[in-house]
Amino acid sequence: MNILHSFSHTDLALELKDELEESCEREQFFEGITVSHKEIGKKGLKETVIKIENEAGEKQLGKPQGIYITLEGENMAGNDGGFHEEMSNHLAKRLAKLLLGRKKLLFIGLGNGEVTPDALGPLVIKNLFVTRHLKGWKEVEGCPVVAALAPGVMAQTGMETGEIVEGIVKKIHPDALIVIDALAAKSSERLNRTIQISNTGIAPGSGVGNQRNEITEKTMGVPVIALGVPTVISIPSLACDIMDSFCASQGEKMEDTFSSWPESEKYRFLGKILDAKLWELFVTPKEIDEAVKRISYTLSEGINQFVSSRTS
Amino acid sequence: MNILHSFSHTDLALELKDELEESCEREQFFEGITVSHKEIGKKGLKETVIKIENEAGEKQLGKPQGIYITLEGENMAGNDGGFHEEMSNHLAKRLAKLLLGRKKLLFIGLGNGEVTPDALGPLVIKNLFVTRHLKGWKEVEGCPVVAALAPGVMAQTGMETGEIVEGIVKKIHPDALIVIDALAAKSSERLNRTIQISNTGIAPGSGVGNQRNEITEKTMGVPVIALGVPTVISIPSLACDIMDSFCASQGEKMEDTFSSWPESEKYRFLGKILDAKLWELFVTPKEIDEAVKRISYTLSEGINQFVSSRTS
Amino acid sequence: MNILHSFSHTDLALELKDELEESCEREQFFEGITVSHKEIGKKGLKETVIKIENEAGEKQLGKPQGIYITLEGENMAGNDGGFHEEMSNHLAKRLAKLLLGRKKLLFIGLGNGEVTPDALGPLVIKNLFVTRHLKGWKEVEGCPVVAALAPGVMAQTGMETGEIVEGIVKKIHPDALIVIDALAAKSSERLNRTIQISNTGIAPGSGVGNQRNEITEKTMGVPVIALGVPTVISIPSLACDIMDSFCASQGEKMEDTFSSWPESEKYRFLGKILDAKLWELFVTPKEIDEAVKRISYTLSEGINQFVSSRTS
Amino acid sequence: MNILHSFSHTDLALELKDELEESCEREQFFEGITVSHKEIGKKGLKETVIKIENEAGEKQLGKPQGIYITLEGENMAGNDGGFHEEMSNHLAKRLAKLLLGRKKLLFIGLGNGEVTPDALGPLVIKNLFVTRHLKGWKEVEGCPVVAALAPGVMAQTGMETGEIVEGIVKKIHPDALIVIDALAAKSSERLNRTIQISNTGIAPGSGVGNQRNEITEKTMGVPVIALGVPTVISIPSLACDIMDSFCASQGEKMEDTFSSWPESEKYRFLGKILDAKLWELFVTPKEIDEAVKRISYTLSEGINQFVSSRTS
Repeated sequence: MNILHSFSHTDLALELKDELEESCEREQFFEGITVSHKEIGKKGLKETVIKIENEAGEKQLGKPQGIYITLEGENMAGNDGGFHEEMSNHLAKRLAKLLLGRKKLLFIGLGNGEVTPDALGPLVIKNLFVTRHLKGWKEVEGCPVVAALAPGVMAQTGMETGEIVEGIVKKIHPDALIVIDALAAKSSERLNRTIQISNTGIAPGSGVGNQRNEITEKTMGVPVIALGVPTVISIPSLACDIMDSFCASQGEKMEDTFSSWPESEKYRFLGKILDAKLWELFVTPKEIDEAVKRISYTLSEGINQFVSSRTS
Repeated sequence: MNILHSFSHTDLALELKDELEESCEREQFFEGITVSHKEIGKKGLKETVIKIENEAGEKQLGKPQGIYITLEGENMAGNDGGFHEEMSNHLAKRLAKLLLGRKKLLFIGLGNGEVTPDALGPLVIKNLFVTRHLKGWKEVEGCPVVAALAPGVMAQTGMETGEIVEGIVKKIHPDALIVIDALAAKSSERLNRTIQISNTGIAPGSGVGNQRNEITEKTMGVPVIALGVPTVISIPSLACDIMDSFCASQGEKMEDTFSSWPESEKYRFLGKILDAKLWELFVTPKEIDEAVKRISYTLSEGINQFVSSRTS
Repeated sequence: MNILHSFSHTDLALELKDELEESCEREQFFEGITVSHKEIGKKGLKETVIKIENEAGEKQLGKPQGIYITLEGENMAGNDGGFHEEMSNHLAKRLAKLLLGRKKLLFIGLGNGEVTPDALGPLVIKNLFVTRHLKGWKEVEGCPVVAALAPGVMAQTGMETGEIVEGIVKKIHPDALIVIDALAAKSSERLNRTIQISNTGIAPGSGVGNQRNEITEKTMGVPVIALGVPTVISIPSLACDIMDSFCASQGEKMEDTFSSWPESEKYRFLGKILDAKLWELFVTPKEIDEAVKRISYTLSEGINQFVSSRTS
Repeated sequence: MNILHSFSHTDLALELKDELEESCEREQFFEGITVSHKEIGKKGLKETVIKIENEAGEKQLGKPQGIYITLEGENMAGNDGGFHEEMSNHLAKRLAKLLLGRKKLLFIGLGNGEVTPDALGPLVIKNLFVTRHLKGWKEVEGCPVVAALAPGVMAQTGMETGEIVEGIVKKIHPDALIVIDALAAKSSERLNRTIQISNTGIAPGSGVGNQRNEITEKTMGVPVIALGVPTVISIPSLACDIMDSFCASQGEKMEDTFSSWPESEKYRFLGKILDAKLWELFVTPKEIDEAVKRISYTLSEGINQFVSSRTS
């Protein structure tokens, strides 16, 4: 739930799929996982849809069953107004598709607003067009009713975010939850250039079993859409990059060490050798303030557009 | 609940009592209301305790039954470290007395963190020593377990704050709620120089009957302590001041108009003649940023001291 | 310079002109002052251009010679995207006209970012497209070179803002200064619905003679464009409204008192009767956080558009 | 000047000295460098004073001549009020010693307030007791006159911070500048647990020769005291840690590679093999928001105490 306390080397289904493709036989790969690609608009926005359809797929990708839509674009952290417009338009469509006409919506911005790369969720919430309290809004046919909260992180509240959200869900009974969160990626090239939309909610540490920490249909009782953007690189991913650079520089000498290992093996190895104190750190780009400001604005625009388009 | 949308000309029991004293016979006044004064420490801190003991008192003062402790001091918005230390010490004692050994505490900072005089509650929450999530904390004998949230205002969330708080209370089951809020005062001299602590919770517009807007033991199911500091003057109070100045300047000519009326009559009159658009405004001191920062810090210190002193 | 410490009952030339029109003979009025009106676009944006051409005009309006452009629109604090686009387009054109091809620009956001209605200037600066440090930018023909700073107010820095700005101007030698500031208005209906653009800079307390506090071509050595939005009402203006309401309620009895006086007389009178402590207060709308956020964004967009359009 | 754009693997003279000790003969080391240690108070605060006395010392340590005082303490990012009091007391003394009775002081908070670990300088400025604008302050014998500014970083202003500061210095003529900045450290154990105070100002990239980027007595014309706290680890330092862990895990096989090299050799090697995109990242602890808040508060307290103690 909180990128800064994630245990995974990546939160992106897309990166897990890439790893799988590299290490697997083609046929084996397709068991329970389908992948499709598309170009969107004229500004270089790419969409990849990954569906995990059964337990076999779940096990292979290490992610729960569901749909994972990834939008990628070079200009996501940049100044190109046209690109941001295309992206928010497309985001509005995808939300409409995943929400299937549900009208009472609760948006939750996860993360710590005081830590720049983790402030994405709270910043999106700040710019949402909230309507649930507006008199007369509910009576208009087809209008979505939007509530929103950025509850902060456990170090600030003393409560699991899942507890706070569950309490509110049971009080106000939304039809669906939409959680917005910062994510960890493996590749620095994907930072601030990727949006992941899934219908699986957020279940950190698959199998680790901290249920209070899970925001899913199972724990909340309503469908949960998750919107995420990678803003940090995990320490193991950075370590992996550094090790690969080192091995490459050593030529034959290191041929059989590290670089040639499968990804999963690399991360297991790093988990053993790296000093525990390193896990208390995170890695983010120097221009993170500008990137988070811009992307959060585009996400808000997409959501606001979705909310308004349903009213007409 | 939200100072900026209050209908009362003052939220201070102390100011209502002063009005009553001016307009009432002494004996009548004491029906159901007791008042006591005390000097605290050496830095000019004054304490007034008002108890409303029955329905007669409730009706006279226009506030629900309970205890209203008011702390006043000239230096509250100023730089005097010694004063702030005495005040936070005393606040810690008063909290201990009102909370009667309850240990599982939920602190709620009410108000809009984006509007300077209304940011008091959210700022206090930011500096609290939160412990509920700390492993091992609960096992230690006598340790209070602190959770905290600043949920924002309805224009930001689409939800009544009462709904959010009730949802969380039903999920995490605290023994007591403590809500921190900015208040409206009548006199500009009380702004940022007064703290009101009561055991009645927050029930805006007594009798107006918006139950969702009420945070009291009745609606929450647990005792509610309210900590408030006046940071704005209500428009009717300001108008009253201006009218009094005017009447004074006119001498005999205005003798029977306004100035000589009872307070309640003045406010009824102003409610009729003032343009509706004025009610969309609020009034606050120019140095409000410094005052709110300092007072919120002293409140946090008092609470943190209370929380720590119980552990020993 | 700082709205919160202004002595004038309004900073808007438009309101001063309205007062003058009410109290003057027509011909007398036109001595040294010209006024023209225009509708802009399709969304209800109105423009009034007031030119003060000589000392006679200066004396009558109580403002220095120069051009004062006022843009007004009901939707300025609202959500209408189309309106905000028309307004930022028009603002870009007006800036181009006033800046006359000057290319090395320094933008200064005046005001206290910690006090909501005074945060307008600092917020505009946060969203500007700054270019002065970009390599290669200066070589491109016709590109404006943008630098920007929000220095804070004297209570935060210990320095007059004029001192800070003058020091920087003498070091980096811009061709023109553009200062953005929150203003005081007389009418609550103009709050957050008006932009004033002038080529006279900022000279607080005309005649009061605090030169350190002045940001004008005279003190800075380069032309100074001032962009302002009224976000507070002055206490005398509010008092005036309240008194007018009172007099109206009293019918004939008050016929010769206050209401019928000329504006200047009213303010002189209020200056005498109002308690000094009231001058330490300011008045602003309850929704000021949303209004300031939206308007500052539209101003930034207008400026960014102006800056980009000149590059092509 | 800006930690996020530093090229050095550490900004701490203490860490450079440790490296030197490891790689040098003792005698050679003492040429032009003196080092002394001390325990301060009862809470575990340690002080190391390094003096670089001539060019030989300058060359060996890669830092300009001057005094570098380092305060270290385990509890610096923690909650121990007693520790923070001892530290701010000691800081006040050290400032008094370095400032030698200079009275007109300008404090500059360097860094980007929008990026958590870089917000240290701006946060310190926010809590300073600024006095330069207070009437009567200057006349009191022995009172320091404090001005302060947090100008932001070049990506926000388009100006080198050195340009802004120089412009202001030439306008207001302080006797001394005190710059507060976040630093990069080599060891994650020093992050948020170390303060460096030096009388050398800030000269980034020794020899790189960007004079606009330098804030020293040479460029400013007045003495410059620098106060810094390491809040980020440089990428090369992290890479070095990771490589050392790897080599250790490989036993004899890697005996002659990397781990046994001198530090300078390691960093030269990493500079060659690491991908350029990694240099766009920075590394900081997960609890950085709390740490920066607490340390900035202690620094402000120390400075305010120094400023007040001189008045008596």
